Amino acid sequence: MGLNEELQEALNNDRVTANETVLRQHSKDESYHTPNLPAIVVFPETADEVSEIMKIANKYHSPVVPFGFGSSLEGNVIPNKQDTITIDFSLMNKVLEVREQDFLVKVQPGVTRSQLNKELKKYGLFFSVDPGADATLGGMAATNASGTTAVRYGVMRDQVRDLEVVLADGTIIHTGNLAAKSSSGYHLNGIFVGSEGTLGCFTELTLKVYGIPEHTMAARASFDSVDDAVEAVVGILQAGVPVARVELVDEQSMKQMNLYSGTTYKEGPTLFLEFHGNEAGLNHDVEFTREIVLDKDCKEIKFETDTAARNRLWEARHNVAYAYIHGHPGKKQMVTDVCVPISELAGAVKEARLAIESSGLEGGVVGHVGDGNYHALIMIDPSNPADVNLAKQVNARIVNYALERGGTCTGEHGVGIGKQEYQEKEHGEALGVMQKIKQVLDPDNILNPNKIIKETSIETS
Amino acid sequence: MGLNEELQEALNNDRVTANETVLRQHSKDESYHTPNLPAIVVFPETADEVSEIMKIANKYHSPVVPFGFGSSLEGNVIPNKQDTITIDFSLMNKVLEVREQDFLVKVQPGVTRSQLNKELKKYGLFFSVDPGADATLGGMAATNASGTTAVRYGVMRDQVRDLEVVLADGTIIHTGNLAAKSSSGYHLNGIFVGSEGTLGCFTELTLKVYGIPEHTMAARASFDSVDDAVEAVVGILQAGVPVARVELVDEQSMKQMNLYSGTTYKEGPTLFLEFHGNEAGLNHDVEFTREIVLDKDCKEIKFETDTAARNRLWEARHNVAYAYIHGHPGKKQMVTDVCVPISELAGAVKEARLAIESSGLEGGVVGHVGDGNYHALIMIDPSNPADVNLAKQVNARIVNYALERGGTCTGEHGVGIGKQEYQEKEHGEALGVMQKIKQVLDPDNILNPNKIIKETSIETS
Repeated sequence: MGLNEELQEALNNDRVTANETVLRQHSKDESYHTPNLPAIVVFPETADEVSEIMKIANKYHSPVVPFGFGSSLEGNVIPNKQDTITIDFSLMNKVLEVREQDFLVKVQPGVTRSQLNKELKKYGLFFSVDPGADATLGGMAATNASGTTAVRYGVMRDQVRDLEVVLADGTIIHTGNLAAKSSSGYHLNGIFVGSEGTLGCFTELTLKVYGIPEHTMAARASFDSVDDAVEAVVGILQAGVPVARVELVDEQSMKQMNLYSGTTYKEGPTLFLEFHGNEAGLNHDVEFTREIVLDKDCKEIKFETDTAARNRLWEARHNVAYAYIHGHPGKKQMVTDVCVPISELAGAVKEARLAIESSGLEGGVVGHVGDGNYHALIMIDPSNPADVNLAKQVNARIVNYALERGGTCTGEHGVGIGKQEYQEKEHGEALGVMQKIKQVLDPDNILNPNKIIKETSIETS
Repeated sequence: MGLNEELQEALNNDRVTANETVLRQHSKDESYHTPNLPAIVVFPETADEVSEIMKIANKYHSPVVPFGFGSSLEGNVIPNKQDTITIDFSLMNKVLEVREQDFLVKVQPGVTRSQLNKELKKYGLFFSVDPGADATLGGMAATNASGTTAVRYGVMRDQVRDLEVVLADGTIIHTGNLAAKSSSGYHLNGIFVGSEGTLGCFTELTLKVYGIPEHTMAARASFDSVDDAVEAVVGILQAGVPVARVELVDEQSMKQMNLYSGTTYKEGPTLFLEFHGNEAGLNHDVEFTREIVLDKDCKEIKFETDTAARNRLWEARHNVAYAYIHGHPGKKQMVTDVCVPISELAGAVKEARLAIESSGLEGGVVGHVGDGNYHALIMIDPSNPADVNLAKQVNARIVNYALERGGTCTGEHGVGIGKQEYQEKEHGEALGVMQKIKQVLDPDNILNPNKIIKETSIETS
């Protein structure tokens, strides 16, 4: 028996394919990175099947790439080795248990965030992490995704109470437990979340969920300059207003938004805000925020209390990246993703706008500015090397600016292949510790190889 | 030159000692575990000196134990090997930088939490984590400490943005950065926090701090039974009240508290509560909480708005463990530390009370019940093997109950030597992953050896 036959046998003969269309679907993500076909795609239904797949992969030294929804932005799921087995988790898509009293939910990795929220709504609960795409929860844990609500509820890593993980040798472990806190053993949840499939495959996740807030209010605040907008954010955070969302959309991106979403919002640098709480506290927060932003030269602030207007506002915000793609047929988007300390945010966003403008490429800046995380959305023709090169230069300028000021090269998209070249500058000698952990947990280097840590740096370490 | 001489040279000849009194101070913690002398105690002043010490320890294969305030509760800092070098961090006690706008502070590991809060108060900021003792921040990070405010602000691991760590071979790394979030590389902050000196020595910490809340209110709510009190906690959490503290003190412990602190609080199972927020929101939270607890058969609820009464209340709560010690001259305290999912809390606390009562030992239950974490405080004569044995049986019963219900054997005290025997039951095959990480990062096993993971299980792995 060969690799294919062994996989066929492990998966009841019907969930292993080398069909060209399926391979092509699994050759790419939503990024500008060059696609590359896997050799085979498998669709397991249980952790035991994933364990069998890993044992077979081990036997044949075949690289393995776990695949959720394919919405990664740094080439994280693109095979970059011959004979790659891509494990597609779309059949492991069940919400297994809702533990209302514990504010916990147990899900399979292929459940998407919108699917989970639909289920949780029945219990008056919601899952907070909201990247732009309707990603799977396994994928979101793999990249330590976040989104607009991290400023209040935290990132993916903060929500993961336990993971069931299949290791390189097929061993199945649990990284945590159901308790709200623990000081027992090493914190494996932390190291596996964000490991992008390089240390193991997630087959079950236990996640923290929240009660749907009693009251919610959203607002749009327009400014004449990005500087004023960012200063207003700093003011809101300094004042201790427990804002649930605070997003910056620059003038260029507001224009794309209005075009794509049919909104008629004022086309200047804008903050999108949301507040959660009891009615009395929320009214106080809203009033306080109005005072702060007006003091920072806000030109217009509009509050949305009804659900429909609020949903429209957030849908428009979530769709900014797609608005750019829609408005630039044939082009692809390169998205930067740095995160800086709040005190460095105004300078960093200004630097990003300058970098885009001096490149001559079209693009805008949007971001989860309450965390100091923002994205430059840059439109390029991926088949034009000059475009790609210019965009990479913009990215490099933005990343270096962030790293020199205590920031990180990726706030939420992960390293994949796109941020590998910055790992040494960002982590210094700590990269050696990461390499050692990778080597000891995946000695044959079959788990999503040559992602996060470059193989050359592994070999020479 | 021998070990002593090399250490003398590295530390300018005056910060290395084998003085009997100093050795004895470093032979124990605040637990019931048997003291054991180190061979030598060193007092470094810089990370470079710590790196030198590690290089020398490596050369002589000498075990190294990092030591903060000595307030650990599971023997975490007790030497358990011949020729141990204890590194006392008390001279590295500077608050290095307060970054107001970023809500960050950079400290040396020997800074205590009360020292930090005194400094932060000048800026209108506070550090949230509050274990009973006035522990050092290095020690608190080493055990992933928490305390009464974790239900709102999180545990020590949630506050650590970056650590400077000296590894086993003397290499100095940084585990994080200054940004609020990052998906870059493996999350080393997570794995080093809670590693109890077994993976490296912390020489600098960058920590998240918070604005002192606009308004604070505290309350005491008395019940007829622990069951009613725990049900009230579940009710408060279910209702989404953003309570800042919610502590349970059982009847036995209330008596000890009144005796020791001179308070005249009602001596039944009691919840100590605190609320933070703006005035309007807080009043709403308080009213809502009153309704919930009265609905759960609360017999008396008293609110404290003025600072003095509030401080008295929390001081009394923090001193419960010392109240027991003071009330039982010559005895030591064995403290259990499990954490369970909230849905299992009422049963777990009842089981703990039963376990204490059937043992015939004296003791009470207190806990950070908003997290499902509670402690049985059991008074024993450590020189009486029967006492020690009975207390260990109570502990085992409480731990096993928790582990069988998705809980953890330690919510905040760490493993040290006291919880080693439960690691395999709690972590299963994941213990193998922890062993591999320990082996690869400390191949000569010199960093606080035979803590967390038992050496026998390392050797046979």
